[in-house]
Amino acid sequence: MSSNRKVAILGATGAVGQRFIQLLQGHPYFKIEVLAASERSAGKKYKEACSWTMESNLPREIAEMHVAHTDVESVEKAGNIDIVFSALPGDLAGPVETEFAAVYPVFSKASAHRMDSDVPLIIPEVNPDHVALIPIQKKARGWNGFISTDPNCSTIQLAMTLKPLMKFGLRQVIVSTMQALSGAGYPGVASLDIIDNVVPFISKEEEKLECEPLKILGTFDGNFVRNANFVLSASCNRVNVKDGHLESVFVKLGENPSVDEIEEAFRKFKGEPQKLKLPSAPENPIVVRKEPNRPQPRIDRQEGKGMSVVVGRIRNDSIMTLKYMCLGHNTIRGAAGGGILSAELMIAKGLA
Amino acid sequence: MSSNRKVAILGATGAVGQRFIQLLQGHPYFKIEVLAASERSAGKKYKEACSWTMESNLPREIAEMHVAHTDVESVEKAGNIDIVFSALPGDLAGPVETEFAAVYPVFSKASAHRMDSDVPLIIPEVNPDHVALIPIQKKARGWNGFISTDPNCSTIQLAMTLKPLMKFGLRQVIVSTMQALSGAGYPGVASLDIIDNVVPFISKEEEKLECEPLKILGTFDGNFVRNANFVLSASCNRVNVKDGHLESVFVKLGENPSVDEIEEAFRKFKGEPQKLKLPSAPENPIVVRKEPNRPQPRIDRQEGKGMSVVVGRIRNDSIMTLKYMCLGHNTIRGAAGGGILSAELMIAKGLA
Amino acid sequence: MSSNRKVAILGATGAVGQRFIQLLQGHPYFKIEVLAASERSAGKKYKEACSWTMESNLPREIAEMHVAHTDVESVEKAGNIDIVFSALPGDLAGPVETEFAAVYPVFSKASAHRMDSDVPLIIPEVNPDHVALIPIQKKARGWNGFISTDPNCSTIQLAMTLKPLMKFGLRQVIVSTMQALSGAGYPGVASLDIIDNVVPFISKEEEKLECEPLKILGTFDGNFVRNANFVLSASCNRVNVKDGHLESVFVKLGENPSVDEIEEAFRKFKGEPQKLKLPSAPENPIVVRKEPNRPQPRIDRQEGKGMSVVVGRIRNDSIMTLKYMCLGHNTIRGAAGGGILSAELMIAKGLA
Amino acid sequence: MSSNRKVAILGATGAVGQRFIQLLQGHPYFKIEVLAASERSAGKKYKEACSWTMESNLPREIAEMHVAHTDVESVEKAGNIDIVFSALPGDLAGPVETEFAAVYPVFSKASAHRMDSDVPLIIPEVNPDHVALIPIQKKARGWNGFISTDPNCSTIQLAMTLKPLMKFGLRQVIVSTMQALSGAGYPGVASLDIIDNVVPFISKEEEKLECEPLKILGTFDGNFVRNANFVLSASCNRVNVKDGHLESVFVKLGENPSVDEIEEAFRKFKGEPQKLKLPSAPENPIVVRKEPNRPQPRIDRQEGKGMSVVVGRIRNDSIMTLKYMCLGHNTIRGAAGGGILSAELMIAKGLA
Repeated sequence: MSSNRKVAILGATGAVGQRFIQLLQGHPYFKIEVLAASERSAGKKYKEACSWTMESNLPREIAEMHVAHTDVESVEKAGNIDIVFSALPGDLAGPVETEFAAVYPVFSKASAHRMDSDVPLIIPEVNPDHVALIPIQKKARGWNGFISTDPNCSTIQLAMTLKPLMKFGLRQVIVSTMQALSGAGYPGVASLDIIDNVVPFISKEEEKLECEPLKILGTFDGNFVRNANFVLSASCNRVNVKDGHLESVFVKLGENPSVDEIEEAFRKFKGEPQKLKLPSAPENPIVVRKEPNRPQPRIDRQEGKGMSVVVGRIRNDSIMTLKYMCLGHNTIRGAAGGGILSAELMIAKGLA
Repeated sequence: MSSNRKVAILGATGAVGQRFIQLLQGHPYFKIEVLAASERSAGKKYKEACSWTMESNLPREIAEMHVAHTDVESVEKAGNIDIVFSALPGDLAGPVETEFAAVYPVFSKASAHRMDSDVPLIIPEVNPDHVALIPIQKKARGWNGFISTDPNCSTIQLAMTLKPLMKFGLRQVIVSTMQALSGAGYPGVASLDIIDNVVPFISKEEEKLECEPLKILGTFDGNFVRNANFVLSASCNRVNVKDGHLESVFVKLGENPSVDEIEEAFRKFKGEPQKLKLPSAPENPIVVRKEPNRPQPRIDRQEGKGMSVVVGRIRNDSIMTLKYMCLGHNTIRGAAGGGILSAELMIAKGLA
Repeated sequence: MSSNRKVAILGATGAVGQRFIQLLQGHPYFKIEVLAASERSAGKKYKEACSWTMESNLPREIAEMHVAHTDVESVEKAGNIDIVFSALPGDLAGPVETEFAAVYPVFSKASAHRMDSDVPLIIPEVNPDHVALIPIQKKARGWNGFISTDPNCSTIQLAMTLKPLMKFGLRQVIVSTMQALSGAGYPGVASLDIIDNVVPFISKEEEKLECEPLKILGTFDGNFVRNANFVLSASCNRVNVKDGHLESVFVKLGENPSVDEIEEAFRKFKGEPQKLKLPSAPENPIVVRKEPNRPQPRIDRQEGKGMSVVVGRIRNDSIMTLKYMCLGHNTIRGAAGGGILSAELMIAKGLA
Repeated sequence: MSSNRKVAILGATGAVGQRFIQLLQGHPYFKIEVLAASERSAGKKYKEACSWTMESNLPREIAEMHVAHTDVESVEKAGNIDIVFSALPGDLAGPVETEFAAVYPVFSKASAHRMDSDVPLIIPEVNPDHVALIPIQKKARGWNGFISTDPNCSTIQLAMTLKPLMKFGLRQVIVSTMQALSGAGYPGVASLDIIDNVVPFISKEEEKLECEPLKILGTFDGNFVRNANFVLSASCNRVNVKDGHLESVFVKLGENPSVDEIEEAFRKFKGEPQKLKLPSAPENPIVVRKEPNRPQPRIDRQEGKGMSVVVGRIRNDSIMTLKYMCLGHNTIRGAAGGGILSAELMIAKGLA
C-alpha cells in the first residue's frame, strides 16, 4: 500500500489542526507537506502562527514550516500534495473545500458539506459502504478530487454506540451531553464563562446531533443514502473538562434485550477498519466498563489511543428501553483521528 | 406570630449545617440555641470543630459556641430548645431523629424518614396540604413532636417545575443531572476525582430522584398520600461546580401546550409561602430566563436569594412533549433554605 | 454634599465596566447617565452589546440603555454628564481620556496616564495628598477637567500593605503573584489555557507592579511626586480563580519589628476615606486573618464588600525581614471600587 | 546487570503507590511481587482496595493481586522479595521502614528518616556520592538492609536547579510555590476547598523545603554530610492543578553571571544517571524553555517522561541576582520516579 501520500492541512493552527499534526507524526501512509491557515497566519513560521496546546511538544520540523494561505494556489506553491485534511471552521469551509475538491481528495472535519446528498458522512466502522457516493459525486460535479466528511464530534461517539443497537429495532434516542472545552476550538470558551459553571447551550450542536446520525445509519440504495428511520432529541451542555464528550443516552428499541445482550452487542462490535487492520483503527471500537462510576472523561478518553468509544452504566429504563453513558475523545475520534481513519479507509479501498 | 423559637441544629458542622447557620442569622422566627454534631466535634468550640466553607464570615457568637453531641440529653443540657433542624447524614439520621421527634418538631434534610407513610415530604409551594400527615403521625407514634422531611436536593427543583405541568397531564419525565460538589457534603468529592472531569454516578441519587417526586406530587386522601401517576427516569452526574444543580429535563404530557403556555404556567406559579409572605419565600418560586444559554449555575443560583428555581431553554420535543433546563441552589433551596421554609409554613399553620 | 453627579462610563461593556455599573447601583453621589463603548457596541442596547458576567442580575434600566461611542461628541449627545469613569483597555485609553479630560474630571482605571508626572496615581487610603497634582495638571494642560488614575489591580493591594510598613524603613520587596482570571478582562484567558494549569506570565504586569508602588508611596514635594526609596521585584502568575489576586510577599525592613508589631500596624491602619466616612470606604482597609491557611481568594475576596485587603501568614523571614500573604478583590478594590473611592475622595475635597 | 529484583510496594493503594505500579510496568530491573497497605485494604484484591486515579488503565495482573498488610511478616508471607519501595504516609513510615530495613534495602518517599544523619537523601543527578552513607548506616545499625530516602516533591525540582548554580556561589534562595493537588495524596484536598481558589498553606511543607536542599547540596566528608552554606525561605501554596509543582524562584549568587551563562549551566547539567544510562534517567535533567510563558504545569510536566525539571523565564533580578520559574512532575520525578531512579543508581553501584 502506498505510504507516501503528501498531505496539506487546512486550518492547521486551530485545535483540530494541531491534533492532525500530532496524530500524523510517524504515520505509515501520510507525510505533512503543507500547513495552511488564514491571512493572519500565512507567511509566518508555524511556531509563531500557532498557540500550541497539545500535551506533546510541537515537533521541531513542523515548528519551522512556513504557513501557506488556505487557497489552492498558495498551497500548491508551498508544496506538491496528494490529499487534503480540512480542519477549517464550518463557516469558512464551504467554498474553500469545493475549490480543493476539484483537484484533490478532501477529508473534512467541517460541517459545510456534511448533508450534501452526494457527500458521504463517514464513520469507518459504521457506514463504510457510503463511500460508494464518491464516484457518484465526482461524476456529478466533474471533479478529479472529492469531498468526504466526518460527523460532528458529539455525533461520532453516539452513532458508534447506536450502530450495534440497530438490530434490536432502534426507535427513539434522547441524549443530554456534557461536552469538553476543546470542542469549541481555541480560544473558544472564555475561562470566565466556565469556571465554577456549566453552559447549557452550544450553538447549532443540537441540530447536528439530531440530524447527522440519521444519515450515517441510513442505507445506501445505489444512488444516494436514505435516512434511518428513528428519532433523536438532544440537549447539549458545555462543562469544565479539557477533552472528552460524555453523553447520557436513553434509547427506545423495538425489542427488549437484556443488559447482558446489549453489553455483548457493544463488545462484539467490529467494523471494516478492524478487519483491514487500518493503522488508526482501535482494537475495540467500543469498550464497555463495568464499574458503577465510569466512563469518566479524564480517565477514559485515551482508551484505544483516543479512538475507542467507552460505554458504561448500561441499565434498563422504565420509560424507554435502556439507558447508558458514552464517552469519546472529541478531538481524536471526534475530529482529527476520525478524519485520518476515513482517509485510511479510502486508500485501502483504492479511492484515494 | 411567635418569633422566639429556639433552635437546635443537628449535624451543625457539615456543609448543610453551615448553611442553616448562615441562613438563620437575623431570622425573624428562629434563634440558634444549640449546635450539635458527632463525637469528634462534641465539646469543642464551633470554630474549632468546623471547617467553615461559606462565603460570608463565620458569625462571631456562633464561632464561640460549644458543640453538643447529637443526642437529646446532651442537647437539652446545652440549652432549652423549641424545634430541631436536622442536617445529619442519611445513614445516621434514622434513630436520632426518632429520638428527638418524641419531644420536638424535627425538620429533617436527611433521607431516612422521607418515604415513611406518615411522614410528610414537603416543598411548601408544591404540597403544603401534606402537612395534614403531622397529626396522624403524632397520634400513631404517640409523640409530642414530629418529623417533617425535605426532599433530596436534586428532587426539589425538579418537582417545583413539574407541579405547574400537572394540569397538562404529566405522564413521563426523563432527566439527566449535572450536580454540584456541595451536594456531596464536606470533604465530599476529592479534588483529584473532579478536576478536568465529570463523574457519571452519585450513590443512591437516581433512586431518590425517580421516587420522591411521586410522593410530593401525590394526593393526600385524608389518611395518607397516594403517589402521583407518572413515571420518572434519571441519570445523575457530578460536575466541577461549587453550588447549583443543573438538570436537563424531557417531559411527556397528555396535552400539547405551546412553549408560551408552558412559560406562562412556570411564571405564574405561586404557592402558599408566597400568599402567606413567609420570610424565606422567594417572590417567584420559578424564574424563567429567555436567553439561549441560561440558566447557568454560577450566574443564576442566587436567584431569589437561592430560593428560586430558574428555568430556561423551554422547547418543544420531537419524542416527548417538551424539554427544558432547570437549576436550583442545592444547599439553599435544596437543603437548609428548604428546611427553614418548611418550618415557617408549619408555624404559620400552627403546627409547630 | 452634592449627590447628583451624572456619570459616563467608558468601556462599559467590559469586565471592569460591568463592575462599575454594579457598584454604582444606588450610590449616594453618582447616577449613571451614559454608557460608552467601542464601534462594535455603539448604538445597541446595553443588554445586547454586553455579555454580563456579574453574579447579580443586570439592572433592568441599564439593560435598556443605548450604548454611545467613546468620544466626547457621542457621549454628550447621549446625555449631560458631570464626571467620567474610564474602564478602557490600556492601549485605547490614552488619547480618549485626554479628549474627555479637557472638559470633565476623568477617573481612569487604564494604565495610559499613570506615570505622567502631573497625573496622580491614587489609593485614597495611601496617598490622598497626591491629589494636589490636580490643580497643577489643570493649569499645565489648560484643561477644565483632569485625569486621576488608579493603580494596576495587583499593585493596589500590595501598596496598601506596604504603607503601614514604611515606618519600619521599607527597603526591598519580593513578590510572587497568583492572579485571577477576571484581571485579564473578558473574554480574556482562554479556558483551554488555564484548566489544570498555571500560566507564569502576564504581559507588562511585572513592570507595572515593580514601578507603580514607588510613585504611590512617594512624596509630593509641592510640585511633583518623588519616588519612594525602595526596590521591588515581581514574578506574576495567572491561576484558575475567578476573582481575587493572592500575593506572596517577602519584605526587607530597616528595623526588625516583631510579628505582633507588624500585625498591629496592619490592623490599625486607617486612611482619609475612613475618617471622611466615604460611602465606598471599608471600615478596615486591611484585615488580618490569624488562621494558618488564610487568606484564600474565594473565601476572603468579599471582605469589606471587596474593598478590604486581607493579610495573613505574617512570619519572620530568614533572608528578608518578614513574609506574608495578601489578597485583594481585583475588580472591586483593584478596579471599579478603587476608582469610585478615588472619585468620592475628590468630591469630598472639592476637586470634582 | 541483574534484572530480576522482586519488589514490594508499601502504601501501594495511595497516589504515590499507584504511580510506582504504573512506572514499574515493564521495568528492566524490577518486578512487582507484593503490594502492601493498611489494615483496611489488607486481604482485598488490589482493584477493590484502591481507587485508581492514573490516566493509564490499572494493569490486569495487578488488579487481581491480593494486598498484604504493611509488616515484614505479612509481606514475606505474600512473596519472596529483594527490595522495598515505601510510599507510606510520613507519620506511619518511621517504625515500619526501620523494621523492613533490618532485612531489605528500603527506598523511601516518606519524610520520616530523611534527616537522620546516616540516611542519604538522594537526587541521583545531584548527590550520588551521598550513597557512601549506606555502608556506614548498615554498620551502625547492624542491618542487612538499609534506608535510602528521596526528598519532598517540592524540594527535588528546586534542588535540581540549584545544583548547577552552586559554582556561581549560591547564597540565598526565596521561593513561592504553586503545588498540585496530587501532592496531597488521595483523597487529599477536598474539591470544595480548591474550586475557584488557592490555599496558601501546606502543612510542614515550608519547613521541608527550607531544610532538605541544604543536606542534598551538602558535602560528604567521609563520615557524614555537612550542610551546604546558603539560606532558603519558602512560601507554599496549593493551586487547582492535577500534577506538576510550579515554583517562582529568586536567587542571590556570589558572582554575577549573565542570563546566557545561567541558561547554559542549566542546559549542560548532566549527572551520573545520564552517564550510566539508567533506565529511568531523562536525557536532560533540566530542560530550558525560552517562550515567555513557560513552563506551564499541564503542558510541560511530562517532559522527559515526567523525569525532567523544566525551567523558564530566567531573568536578572534587581534585589537578588536572578529569578526564574521551575516545574517538576510531583508524583513522577518528585515521588515514584525519583525513588525508582535512586534504586537504579544503587544497583548500578552494587549497593542493592
